[in-house]
Amino acid sequence: MAALIECIPNVSEGRRQDVVSALANAAVEAGEGVVLLDRTSDADHNRSVLTFLGDGDALVASMTALVGAALGAIDLRTHRGAHPRVGAVDVIPFVPLRGATAADCVAFAKTLGKALADRYGLPVYLYEDAATSPDRQNLANIRKGEFEGLAAKMAEPAWIPDFGPRTPHPTGGATVVGARAPLVAYNINLGTSDLAIADRIARAIRHLSGGYRFVKAMGVKLDARGQVQVSINMTNFEKTPLHRVFETVKSEASRHGVAVVGSEIVGLVPQAALLAAAEHYLRLEADPSPQVLENKLLERLS
Amino acid sequence: MAALIECIPNVSEGRRQDVVSALANAAVEAGEGVVLLDRTSDADHNRSVLTFLGDGDALVASMTALVGAALGAIDLRTHRGAHPRVGAVDVIPFVPLRGATAADCVAFAKTLGKALADRYGLPVYLYEDAATSPDRQNLANIRKGEFEGLAAKMAEPAWIPDFGPRTPHPTGGATVVGARAPLVAYNINLGTSDLAIADRIARAIRHLSGGYRFVKAMGVKLDARGQVQVSINMTNFEKTPLHRVFETVKSEASRHGVAVVGSEIVGLVPQAALLAAAEHYLRLEADPSPQVLENKLLERLS
Repeated sequence: MAALIECIPNVSEGRRQDVVSALANAAVEAGEGVVLLDRTSDADHNRSVLTFLGDGDALVASMTALVGAALGAIDLRTHRGAHPRVGAVDVIPFVPLRGATAADCVAFAKTLGKALADRYGLPVYLYEDAATSPDRQNLANIRKGEFEGLAAKMAEPAWIPDFGPRTPHPTGGATVVGARAPLVAYNINLGTSDLAIADRIARAIRHLSGGYRFVKAMGVKLDARGQVQVSINMTNFEKTPLHRVFETVKSEASRHGVAVVGSEIVGLVPQAALLAAAEHYLRLEADPSPQVLENKLLERLS
Repeated sequence: MAALIECIPNVSEGRRQDVVSALANAAVEAGEGVVLLDRTSDADHNRSVLTFLGDGDALVASMTALVGAALGAIDLRTHRGAHPRVGAVDVIPFVPLRGATAADCVAFAKTLGKALADRYGLPVYLYEDAATSPDRQNLANIRKGEFEGLAAKMAEPAWIPDFGPRTPHPTGGATVVGARAPLVAYNINLGTSDLAIADRIARAIRHLSGGYRFVKAMGVKLDARGQVQVSINMTNFEKTPLHRVFETVKSEASRHGVAVVGSEIVGLVPQAALLAAAEHYLRLEADPSPQVLENKLLERLS
């Protein structure tokens, strides 16, 4: 089996499905063997998360085409949404899955960053494993100020982009490209419309403010549901598992007299992240993964 | 991805491993994409259980070839073993795993039954979900009298086979084909050595004595651990899920002041049985199965 890498562009369009389709098609057509594994749009966030699988070179071609299509279709000057963003294509991580290393993914991220700058005059920041300085490891640091504050930020010496011009693309802002371990986007929905409660809970669980080591979180208002959400990025689900974060959110919410009404996984999730929850709650005495039928089949086929 | 179905032929040969290998090979070669997942032979029973995975049409081709090979290699007139049997290939259940329904498996069972009758002049009975009358649902009913009593049994109007002649195949008897839900063997361990407590809890959860519809259970003493266990067969984990049984056992145990110290799954388990527990406890708003990365890979590979 060839090396398998996952590429997950987050694009600043979650309402016009025809636009999202056009971006997905552009990516699939430009990269030989690249497949679209998943596609999730959120109208409140006005953002879509696309998951592609392929080899690194093909993914670089795919992502170059996708960014070109996005720059022609998305104008951040008129874009509104609950989720922070700095670019029409906001962020593109490369994730090693099989037969590829973190270092391979860093190299592909740099190749893509240079291509986007050269081809579209788009400023590109490298993040996480591909970051060129510690303050660029964290995506939130790069994104702080968002598209609206980008021109001022880029004028600071600390925020010269890794590739491309020192001014934002007029409609597309900047794109953040990088390499990272598999991530789980996990949202927990609360039975209240009070955003302050979601924000307080987010602060309680996230690393930045004293919470779990591998949790990023923020409160988000879900206007369509009349509820709020603790929107979470689990950056290492093996060391900080979903069930521990879920139980902490439940406990913190109850202190405010608020119920956890549900949770959702956005995009793809490694099986192990969910099996760990089953193992915890059912008090299984061993990791059930080797006993899962589908895993036996996967072993035979790959 | 094509639907994923499990087929578990039980063949009346548990001693001559070259014969069992030849049957397994015949099945794998005849069904495109069919894989042998597991193979267990018991010399005392003089019986082997083979587990195949594939799509329904391919499994029908595989099982047709396997039965043909078995009829050439096994002669029930001289077969002796501890396990009851009515056929050279005794029973073949189809089990829906992913993207297939019970109704699909009933249809495949009937297609296979007709093929075996047409091709080999073999009488076939349909059982469990595929049964054509209530007294044929239970395999033990059909098998009663075994190969040696089969000719007399088939002369009765109640035991006309569903396919094929009204007389046994001279060396191969009859084959029982059907469809059933996946089984999960699931044990819950208690922090006591009092077997009476495990027995009382087993009675509380099992169908026979007023418990859950798809639960069989009994108390078992674990001498090496100084504990007792509620030993459970989950005969339909979709309708009676693991987490519901686990919570009921926990509740019943606490009434006796006893803790649930752990649980264990014996043998293979469909991924869905564990994902359902994760979904329940994390209050996921949707079945996470379509989002599991390994499932996407499986789709691409199979």
